Amino acid sequence: MAEASNKAEYVVGVDLGGTKILSGVFNHSLESIGVTKLSTKSQRGVDKVIERIARCIQDSVDEADLTMKQVAGLGIGAPGAVDFGAGTVIFAPNLEGWKDVPLKKELEKQLGVPVFVENDCNIAALGVYVSELKSKPRSMVGIFVGTGIGGGIILNGDLYSGFGHTAGEIGHMVIDVNGPKCGCGNKGCFEALASRTAIFQQIKAGIKDGQKTMLTEMLGSDLDDLRSGDLRKAIRRGDKFVDRIVEGAAEYIGIATANLVNIVNPEVVVLGGGVIEALADEMMSVIVETATDYAMPGAMKGVEIVASKLGDSAGITGAAVLAKRETK
Amino acid sequence: MAEASNKAEYVVGVDLGGTKILSGVFNHSLESIGVTKLSTKSQRGVDKVIERIARCIQDSVDEADLTMKQVAGLGIGAPGAVDFGAGTVIFAPNLEGWKDVPLKKELEKQLGVPVFVENDCNIAALGVYVSELKSKPRSMVGIFVGTGIGGGIILNGDLYSGFGHTAGEIGHMVIDVNGPKCGCGNKGCFEALASRTAIFQQIKAGIKDGQKTMLTEMLGSDLDDLRSGDLRKAIRRGDKFVDRIVEGAAEYIGIATANLVNIVNPEVVVLGGGVIEALADEMMSVIVETATDYAMPGAMKGVEIVASKLGDSAGITGAAVLAKRETK
Repeated sequence: MAEASNKAEYVVGVDLGGTKILSGVFNHSLESIGVTKLSTKSQRGVDKVIERIARCIQDSVDEADLTMKQVAGLGIGAPGAVDFGAGTVIFAPNLEGWKDVPLKKELEKQLGVPVFVENDCNIAALGVYVSELKSKPRSMVGIFVGTGIGGGIILNGDLYSGFGHTAGEIGHMVIDVNGPKCGCGNKGCFEALASRTAIFQQIKAGIKDGQKTMLTEMLGSDLDDLRSGDLRKAIRRGDKFVDRIVEGAAEYIGIATANLVNIVNPEVVVLGGGVIEALADEMMSVIVETATDYAMPGAMKGVEIVASKLGDSAGITGAAVLAKRETK
Repeated sequence: MAEASNKAEYVVGVDLGGTKILSGVFNHSLESIGVTKLSTKSQRGVDKVIERIARCIQDSVDEADLTMKQVAGLGIGAPGAVDFGAGTVIFAPNLEGWKDVPLKKELEKQLGVPVFVENDCNIAALGVYVSELKSKPRSMVGIFVGTGIGGGIILNGDLYSGFGHTAGEIGHMVIDVNGPKCGCGNKGCFEALASRTAIFQQIKAGIKDGQKTMLTEMLGSDLDDLRSGDLRKAIRRGDKFVDRIVEGAAEYIGIATANLVNIVNPEVVVLGGGVIEALADEMMSVIVETATDYAMPGAMKGVEIVASKLGDSAGITGAAVLAKRETK
């Protein structure tokens, strides 16, 4: 029995974000048996962040009363473009200095287990698909609305990555060609209209223009530490200004959903990410209604649009699924 | 030998359009050995159009010195939403009265061969993929710009139809949410910005506003019988007004291409349809440049954007490919 428990039958899933690192240990049934969190501190530089990732992983393995020897493999979702084959992060806009970082190689050196690097939204889509959709649809589109907006596509029950492993970059789909400037340089990208960043900018611009909102009473006039949850609180207390801006973002998410349904015609669309997690009750009905309005007749037939309940665990679960698949 | 030549080893591909019906007979190497054309005359009603389709098919078979007995199967692309399983045309906006038409059943009754009904753009994508892309990429997106705009997606070497068989409805992807009204009821659909219909409307509106163009000298002030080829002629004679409108449409096609590359990340994007056929020299460089500008860095890496040279034969070729596959 001691022998058996030493077998490398566990996998670790890591979600590397701009502000925090999450690491989760999963057993062979993909049940989470230990999760730890560290802040990313990307300003300390790439090497320090990789050390923190390794530490976070080791902490989670220890938390689960295991050793690295019992870990068969490790999946990690990174917030940017990745080269899956090489295991490098090509570019991660929210991590300082992350350009062509050989993440797989570095982590394998430090931890001694096989490492698989994927895009964070692709991996979150895989996590939602495997652990949340009990009906096992053949196809799914995941739309993750947080600081930015990303997506992941599941076809025939597996992650669809495309030719150069960049499929699902839905955040930079142009839906308002004369709209607000996006960080990518274009105008009117989905992300520039409906991400948390876009919503917060609209709120701050409104306040500057003299709009009244409870948010300034709650957080001061600079809105320091504004979070998606504060928007929910303000709306529930009757803040019409915040309500209107959140509804506007939900309409854009609905239009983007219709575009994706028209193009990909998936069986299920899952909405996730921090904004949806905090504001599902406020946004989902508007999203579904707008998507149904905008999609072609027929394209929406039988298509389910649902909010993910996985929240933060979508990323680590998907990363664990990836590790399990790749080390089988 | 007489026996052998009686074997049903030929297939027929049909392209049913709003203005014309094309039927082509293909041998087992998918070489075209007889093509006929009839006008659709959709105003005569659904039954008459189906009779015309059957006649066009019989004419093409006769043209190839064959009889229907030598035809193993028949594929047909219809301009609208289809139910592939049932073989019905659910709705075809450009064909009068076409709603839930049992096209497969009717044609099988009249012709005695198995019939397979697909969406016209899906089938054109399949035709381009099989007969034009010699490198056999794993994935392709076809964008067909004509009276309307439609698309087709090839993944893993086969047509990707989606959950409800409606995938590839790229013409109603919203790219300018405050843009011109589309026939579908939404605003700023790709089709409302860059189809032949949209281009012609912009030209007519410009003339009404006092713009000068050679087109009125060529065709009279009402622009009766305006065709895509006339735009090419005007541009080559130095018509700045037409040039500007065509360039604007090409930019929208480039933005739509970038959206699709961001989402699907295919190996190849093929542009086809009447507008591209007539104006490839004028539009393609603008399309490629705009798409490269708008796509995410990385997403466009190694992706080819090319103009189809198949023209009208894309549809009948794809329909023949479908018939061959389904009767194998």
